[in-house]
Amino acid sequence: MRAPQVEADPSLPATVRIHEVGARDGLQNESTVVPTDVKAEFIRRLAAAGLTTIETTSFVNPAWVPQLADAAELLTELGEAGRGPERPVLVPNERGLDRALAAGVGAVAIFGSATETFARKNLNRTVAQSLEMFRPVVRRSLAEGLRVRAYVSMCFGDPWEGPVPVEQVVDVSIALLDLGAEELSLGDTIGVGTPGHVRALLAALERRGVPRSATAVHFHDTYGQALANTLTALREGVTIVDSSAGGLGGCPYARSATGNLATEDLIWALHGAGVATGVDLEALVATSAWMSQRLGRPSPSRVVRALTVTE
Amino acid sequence: MRAPQVEADPSLPATVRIHEVGARDGLQNESTVVPTDVKAEFIRRLAAAGLTTIETTSFVNPAWVPQLADAAELLTELGEAGRGPERPVLVPNERGLDRALAAGVGAVAIFGSATETFARKNLNRTVAQSLEMFRPVVRRSLAEGLRVRAYVSMCFGDPWEGPVPVEQVVDVSIALLDLGAEELSLGDTIGVGTPGHVRALLAALERRGVPRSATAVHFHDTYGQALANTLTALREGVTIVDSSAGGLGGCPYARSATGNLATEDLIWALHGAGVATGVDLEALVATSAWMSQRLGRPSPSRVVRALTVTE
Repeated sequence: MRAPQVEADPSLPATVRIHEVGARDGLQNESTVVPTDVKAEFIRRLAAAGLTTIETTSFVNPAWVPQLADAAELLTELGEAGRGPERPVLVPNERGLDRALAAGVGAVAIFGSATETFARKNLNRTVAQSLEMFRPVVRRSLAEGLRVRAYVSMCFGDPWEGPVPVEQVVDVSIALLDLGAEELSLGDTIGVGTPGHVRALLAALERRGVPRSATAVHFHDTYGQALANTLTALREGVTIVDSSAGGLGGCPYARSATGNLATEDLIWALHGAGVATGVDLEALVATSAWMSQRLGRPSPSRVVRALTVTE
Repeated sequence: MRAPQVEADPSLPATVRIHEVGARDGLQNESTVVPTDVKAEFIRRLAAAGLTTIETTSFVNPAWVPQLADAAELLTELGEAGRGPERPVLVPNERGLDRALAAGVGAVAIFGSATETFARKNLNRTVAQSLEMFRPVVRRSLAEGLRVRAYVSMCFGDPWEGPVPVEQVVDVSIALLDLGAEELSLGDTIGVGTPGHVRALLAALERRGVPRSATAVHFHDTYGQALANTLTALREGVTIVDSSAGGLGGCPYARSATGNLATEDLIWALHGAGVATGVDLEALVATSAWMSQRLGRPSPSRVVRALTVTE
């Protein structure tokens, strides 16, 4: 089963690179803690399904995110399959980087904030202080030959500050690129953004000289807007999209656990429009259905449900 | 709470008319049969929230759709609030029209099929025979001064026939307009369509002279594409959208009960883009949350869940 394909959609790019975040952003927000060997199998199956860029885990303080406390063990378990430039790990600070380097990673991601309130709540710092914290992380990573990606969270709305001005997002984005990050991921952490807002932010980034090729988008489906926003970004020339296999990371019935865009729902749209992703949708759906069973709850991905639930 | 609004999105129309189908298309696909007085309150609350066009019920054979067997009683209960040109009812044939006319309706909708297999399964006729069945329904409706809308189902894919050629959809659409229908609603009944396919179908309709002003779209979210497809249609000049309050009509975990686009999720996107709908989102969410309790299950609308679920 696949989306009927009529003709290639000229408003979309010919190919899209998916940055798969299910194993990190997804599992860190699930209430169930998944055993290390299951995580490893999950990542191996994602790769076998054709996903090329897979964020594997996070080297945050295990006390903060117990779901990913086994980061080093996971990379040991994965061996070469968990390393290299297409297997980034999240690192919050130099201590996290030390652990990541000891584990032999080939790419890292830092997690910045577009708003002062979220920087304070998530990082216990001002935005400026967080940039100073990231500076040696990026410098040392580059010196080690690692790729560096920078997340920008709260790019559209913030639960405490409300709508986030686009110029504020651009300022933080440019500061992160100036530190040496090669790729930005613009996150709608609470899922409130809409397509017009996406266009406005991307236009502002372009005006300020941020290359499209360095810009990824990361939408959450809290208000049902994730796919529409993503397609809007693709029409504006973005070609890198973050998504989460099976929509991992959001319990459909909890307010705060806002679901990531499901990789399967994205692929359904892209394949229907003739956009190449290199992913075998059937294999991916089987993987997400399997993980869903491990988590003991239905997948929030509509495609996974449509293709696996029987009555 | 509302979507952050940055600026009006020039790619979208300035206003959109929502054709609310929750009380008919929604409730007819719910397993729970809702009491007549609850249906009437639902419709009154939808109108109070600012929805102008509300499809109220269906005069199909009650043996086929027991959920809507109380069509006449519902209109009696509603009084003037259930009549007029903005309160269409579905009528499958002349017997249904007789009952609808006796109930004093001001508008009707017929339900055609773009595919032979679905025409046979749903109407027990060929497409040509179904058009002949509709002919006297439309003629008599127009003679009575009623507005007539025509649904075209299976416009993108069909569970038995697979992808549906766009020219086949256009042929049926034009035949329904030729009968005298003033508005078409293009339905993706099984939810498989994607934005490129939407553009292709709308382009084919335009080439064959079908006015955009007579074209509504009706998407289901089975594969997560409903909002993306709807916004694509709006960018192509469509200004009438079918949606269902609370996403009624689709159990999120059943394969066959494919969810309608949730009116709230649509409105979130439109209001964020500065598109006027006249709907009070808060009042609508409260209405859908109330109906969800009556049905004993969570709403499939992401906006309803985000704004009402507490932990």
